[in-house]
Order: sequence, then structure tokens, then C-alpha cells
Amino acid sequence: MNMLRGNAVVGQSGGPTAAINATLAGVLRGVLESESIDKLYGAFNGVEGLLEERYCVLSDVVKTEEDIKLLENTPAAALGSCRKKLPDINEGKDVYEKLFKIFEKLDIKYFFYIGGNDSMDTVAKLTKYAKQIGSDLRVMGVPKTIDNDLCGTDHTPGYGSAAKFIATTMQEMLRDTAVYTVKAVTIVEIMGRDAGWLTAAAALPRLNCVISPDLVYLPEVAFSVDDFIEDVNAALEKKPNVVVAVSEGARDKDGRYIGESAQSGALDVFGHKYLSGTGKMLENIIREKIGCKVRSVELNLPQRCASHCASLADLEESVKVGRAAVKCAESGESGKMMCFERAEGEYSVSCIPRDIHEIANMIRFVPREFINERGNNVTDECLEYIMPLINGEVSPVYKNGLPVHLVIER
Amino acid sequence: MNMLRGNAVVGQSGGPTAAINATLAGVLRGVLESESIDKLYGAFNGVEGLLEERYCVLSDVVKTEEDIKLLENTPAAALGSCRKKLPDINEGKDVYEKLFKIFEKLDIKYFFYIGGNDSMDTVAKLTKYAKQIGSDLRVMGVPKTIDNDLCGTDHTPGYGSAAKFIATTMQEMLRDTAVYTVKAVTIVEIMGRDAGWLTAAAALPRLNCVISPDLVYLPEVAFSVDDFIEDVNAALEKKPNVVVAVSEGARDKDGRYIGESAQSGALDVFGHKYLSGTGKMLENIIREKIGCKVRSVELNLPQRCASHCASLADLEESVKVGRAAVKCAESGESGKMMCFERAEGEYSVSCIPRDIHEIANMIRFVPREFINERGNNVTDECLEYIMPLINGEVSPVYKNGLPVHLVIER
Repeated sequence: MNMLRGNAVVGQSGGPTAAINATLAGVLRGVLESESIDKLYGAFNGVEGLLEERYCVLSDVVKTEEDIKLLENTPAAALGSCRKKLPDINEGKDVYEKLFKIFEKLDIKYFFYIGGNDSMDTVAKLTKYAKQIGSDLRVMGVPKTIDNDLCGTDHTPGYGSAAKFIATTMQEMLRDTAVYTVKAVTIVEIMGRDAGWLTAAAALPRLNCVISPDLVYLPEVAFSVDDFIEDVNAALEKKPNVVVAVSEGARDKDGRYIGESAQSGALDVFGHKYLSGTGKMLENIIREKIGCKVRSVELNLPQRCASHCASLADLEESVKVGRAAVKCAESGESGKMMCFERAEGEYSVSCIPRDIHEIANMIRFVPREFINERGNNVTDECLEYIMPLINGEVSPVYKNGLPVHLVIER
Repeated sequence: MNMLRGNAVVGQSGGPTAAINATLAGVLRGVLESESIDKLYGAFNGVEGLLEERYCVLSDVVKTEEDIKLLENTPAAALGSCRKKLPDINEGKDVYEKLFKIFEKLDIKYFFYIGGNDSMDTVAKLTKYAKQIGSDLRVMGVPKTIDNDLCGTDHTPGYGSAAKFIATTMQEMLRDTAVYTVKAVTIVEIMGRDAGWLTAAAALPRLNCVISPDLVYLPEVAFSVDDFIEDVNAALEKKPNVVVAVSEGARDKDGRYIGESAQSGALDVFGHKYLSGTGKMLENIIREKIGCKVRSVELNLPQRCASHCASLADLEESVKVGRAAVKCAESGESGKMMCFERAEGEYSVSCIPRDIHEIANMIRFVPREFINERGNNVTDECLEYIMPLINGEVSPVYKNGLPVHLVIER
């Protein structure tokens, strides 16, 4: 044990998920159990709010075990989030100086950042700066992303809940679209700019031997319009109602997004192309080239916030990884992201820290062997990998027929 | 009692809901308890399939109490549906003769049709024809529509489950959109071509004193683009994240749909305009006239099939109304639709039959007093009317993390 007394701060960053607050609750639980950490500050809107000295003492607003449990089943970042990218250390020294002055003022020795790929960039930079100035600040990244595309971890907290919502909704829509006898194609556009993990989850009902989307297209395999039309026509030969799941990030052999031409081409602050319209584009292609009834559905925001349908396994693991981050930092680790390691045999995971520089700014794609040869569906092996992550149902507290969330006033 | 021995047939028609199979289960329960009805046939794809003699004996495929319970929590018409409109009696006698020949062959004395407004047209026509030829067939309509726009009934089976999904999802999206500090508008387009009942449900979280959409536009009040921009600007003055709920059927003072110009103008077989794109249209207006970050979300199909989030009150009432239809028909009623009557004081409903001619082809709108003066939100009185309908949660059977549905092979 490498005892370092002081306070801690936790922030949430990037897109919200149904499990990001479970991880926040896990960090709080870890701190409450800690002998070296006194107070846990909650930074509002991640580093953006911290730079404006907007924060709370988390245990002052999440007071009881009942509050913590409510927080665990509240969607979207309860502390608020940001998409702020920290400048390069050499170019924006003033930002780092300001942050470390706040750390000093609040006696902060531990920095926990819950976020996705872009947030791990912040963790890497803070670690580097702390080392450079000889600070004893311990910096830990805690993963969160529905996209499941972080390297170094078996899967990411938040993915299981999104996958469960997508699979559940897909199964319901498959029932819905099957009621008529008229030839019809339904295109379901699913989130995932780079990796197809979320779209792969749409095929999960197949493992229960029930209806499943006929065609599944991920960004990992180049999309061909000609093959697509051939695939849909072949499916329509067999049954009148064809359902297609497609990633928003599907792209052709030259790397151009299918939904691209409908867009302005604008980039977000991390330089990513802002996407939408992939489903709409395929809808138009079917209408023009096949001419049958066709519609497109974008699952949209509910994919990342449908906490009423969260995976119990995901929420429990999200708490576990937050708590493990505290234990790891207490034991002397810094500059790490907490990762899941899956055991062989019966499903179980342990939390291990990995060097942040091996993780930040990289993407974990769906491996080619998880996709069939034709590139229009996923394999059973892929579904068996996902299945344990959607296991178990939550029991939200309800009032007047609606789930109760924990609200932190900012 | 007006004892009439024979068999019965039940069909499902129109758009699917999360509760239409609960009503089917209710009809089956009623028949199993009946002393005068022997077999219950299930017509595949409504009158369309019946005319092709496609049907099953329902108790042969829904055998056990466990099966009936699964059916009650399976979304979308398990028997299949149709959008077939029967011809006028004088113009399409052959169709009616064919149907009544099938009734005779199967010794069918009872016809139950579960559907919405257009399906009640079928009930009205069959009743008229039966009377004309002196048939003793008893014809009963059992309501079903997420739209809640049938006349003569306090509300419709299926509405409560759709309302619960919309309110739950809206509350989750409100949490999601509130995480950033950047000015942003989120437009949520909700089903409802004529009446705004579903969109009104988006405001339900307000009754629990939690966040609620800032602006709510129903088709019942003429939509003005100028007022809309003024409303959004006023909301953005107060907070950075503004959420707007809008009916797909919102229209201007001349009755033109807001989403109309994005459409082909095609009509469905009942002569309704096929709509979508209202949210996308408002998104474009905000981008052009206000210039802040804006996105639109279409809740789409899950509104009518999200049985994992069904209202327990709705499913129980849906079973009750199906069973009541059987009892009513047994007692000698015909040419009626089963309606809900709400008691004064503490919420409870009873099922009563009403003459189909007072109901078919009419629309029950949201009354003006349920909408605020400005026409940009609903009143508390409106929400208090809806609230009991979303009460209680279902407990689906899960296998490998996904709900189990009952499937009837057609």
C-alpha cells in the first residue's frame, strides 16, 4: 500500500450512457470505504466545469444508500458532461496550471475521469503533465461508452445496457413488422460511427431461436450498394417482411460513409464527421431500385439512455469498475484505465488497470471472424460474446408509472 | 340471456400495439368460460386472411395458462393484421357472400374484431349485411389503438402502454440532453396523425415534478412557424437545453401538415396522407432561423410495440375488455363496440357496449381545455386524465436477457 492522504475529484465526460452514473456511484462507494481519501468532489461538466470551479461535494448530494441506488439506475451523466479536449501540454500550459491550482486549493490527490475514447485522451494528458511537474496526483480513467470500442478491455461499461435495449427493441419491431402480408423492407439504423458492436447486438434474438434481422451491416466490412440490393431481393424471395440492421458508420470500399452525402460534412471538435441518414439513404435506394414498401427507423438517443431497460450485469459491473478504480489509485497506480478481463469458462470479469497510453485514441473493431463471409450478418460466436453482457433486468423505483431518477442540481 | 350455440372467430386489424394480444387473450379467456361458444377460430391477417380461409383454432396454439400469459405480454398482432377495407355492401356483395359462406361452414355465430377506427368500419358493415340477410351472426368490435382517438370510450386499450413508453423515454432523453452546457434544441416527433393524445403523454414527467419537455405541440391547435421560433427563443433564454415534443400530424391554420412538403403526398388505402418528417422540418427551421445546435428524434415504431415497457393497467384492461366483449355477445348484443367508462373519484373503469354507428369513422380529439392558451403545452388536467392509464409495470418472462414472446405460426 502506498498511502496518500487527501481528497478526490470525479468527472464525467463524453456522450451519456445508461450506466455512467452506476460507475459514478461505484467511485463514491470506493471513496466511502477508503481510509486515505476524505472528500469526493464531483466536477460539473467534466474538466470544462472544473476549470470554472463548478463542483459539489458528492456525498452532500448523494447522501443515503437509497440515493446511491437511485443514482445507479439514473441515465445520463448526473454531474453533467463535456466534450472539451485539453490542449497539448506545450501549447496550453495555462489550462494545466489553472487545473493544478484548483487541485492544490481543494487538496485533491486523486482524479477519476469516467468517459470514452476522447476522455481517455484527457487522462493521458493530465498524467503526463503531473509527471512533468513532479505532482503526486494520481489520475485514473474509468471507461464508459455504449460503443464498446475501447482497447485493452473485454468490453465497456454502458455497452451491455445499450445492447439490451437494441436487442429488445429489435425483437419487438420484428414482431411489429411481421403482421402484414405486403412485401416491405424496414431499415433500422443503429449507433456506431467506427465499430459495429451495437449493430451486432440487434441480432441477439437469434440466439433464443426467434426472429432476427435478415441482414446486418457493420462498418468493419465495406458496404456495396449492388450487394445490398442483391441481399434484400434474396431475402424478399423467402418472406414478405425483411428487416435490415445497419450501423450509422457503414461505409463503402473507399471509406466514404453511406450517410455522408446527406450531411453537411461538418466535423465535431475531435475531428469526427457528424453522421446521420444512413438508414434514410438505404430506404431511398430500396424505393428506387426495388420499389416495394420501405421505411427507415433510427433508434437514436434512447440507445444510450434507456435505463428502464438497462442490463443488470452492466450496471453491476459499472459499479464494480468505479470502485476498483479507487482501490487501484489508493494502492499507488496512476495513468491507468480500468479494464475488464473475462475469465475462461463460465462468465465472470475482473477489473485490472492498464497503461492509458496503450488505450487512448485507439479503436477496438469487431473482429472479422465475428462477421459472416458475405459481410451481411454476424456469427453465433459474436452473439455468444455479447450475450452475458445483457443478462439480468433492473428494478427501477416507480412513481405514478414513471421511473424515479436521482437529480444533482448544477 | 339469449343463448346462441356455435363457434366464434376473432381477428386483429390495423396497426399493431403492445396490448392487442392482451385483448386477444381476453377474448380467448371469455370463450373458455363460455357455455354457448364452443371453438374460437383465429383469423390470420384479419378479414383479408379469413377470405382466403387462413385461420387456426386458437386454443390449439395457445394451450396453457402459461401460453395465455405470454400472449398477453407479446407485442403486435399475433394472428397477423391487415389494412383491408371492405367494399360498400351494394358494390361488393360477392365479398360478403364469401365471408358468410365461411361462417356457415365453420358454424360461426360470433365475430370479434379487435382494431382501431378503420376496423370498426368493418364491424359496422358486417353488422349491416348480417341484418340485411337475416343472419343471426353477432358482431362485436373491440377497440385497440395507441392513438386513443376512438369515440364513445374514455380511452382505448393500447394507449396506456404507448403513453408509458413515450413518457419514460422522454424523461430519459431529457436527462440525456441536459448533460451539456452548449445551447441545443432537441425535437421529438411523436405518432398521432389526427389527435395529439400520444404527444400529450410526453409531458407526464411534469406531474412527478421532474423535468418535462419545454414545448408540446398537438395537431388540435394550428401550428405557426413564427410563434414556434418565438417560443423556442424564449425557452433558450431560460436554459441551454430545450426539448420540443411535436405530433407527426401538426398542421398550420390552413390544415396543411408541417411535414407535408417533405412527402410524396401519397395516400394509404383509407385515404389518409402518409406522414413523416415533421420533426426533421422543425429541425431545419431552427437551424435556419436560430442557428444553434439542433437535432430531431422520431420515436417511430417502438411507440406501438415496446411491450417490455407496457403499462400493467393497460394490459389488464385490455384483457378485461376482450372478455367483456364475449359476455356481451353471449347476452345477445351485436353491432356494438366495447367501451371504457371511467368512474368518478378513485380511478376504475367498467366495460360497456355502444352502437358501432355512433363510433366508426369518427375521431376523438384532445379537448381544447386540455391545451394551454398559447397552444404550446398541455394542462395538468390533461396529464391527470392520462396518469392512471400508465400505472403499474409488467414482468415479462426473460430468457438470456431478452423477453420471451408467444409466436403463432401462420
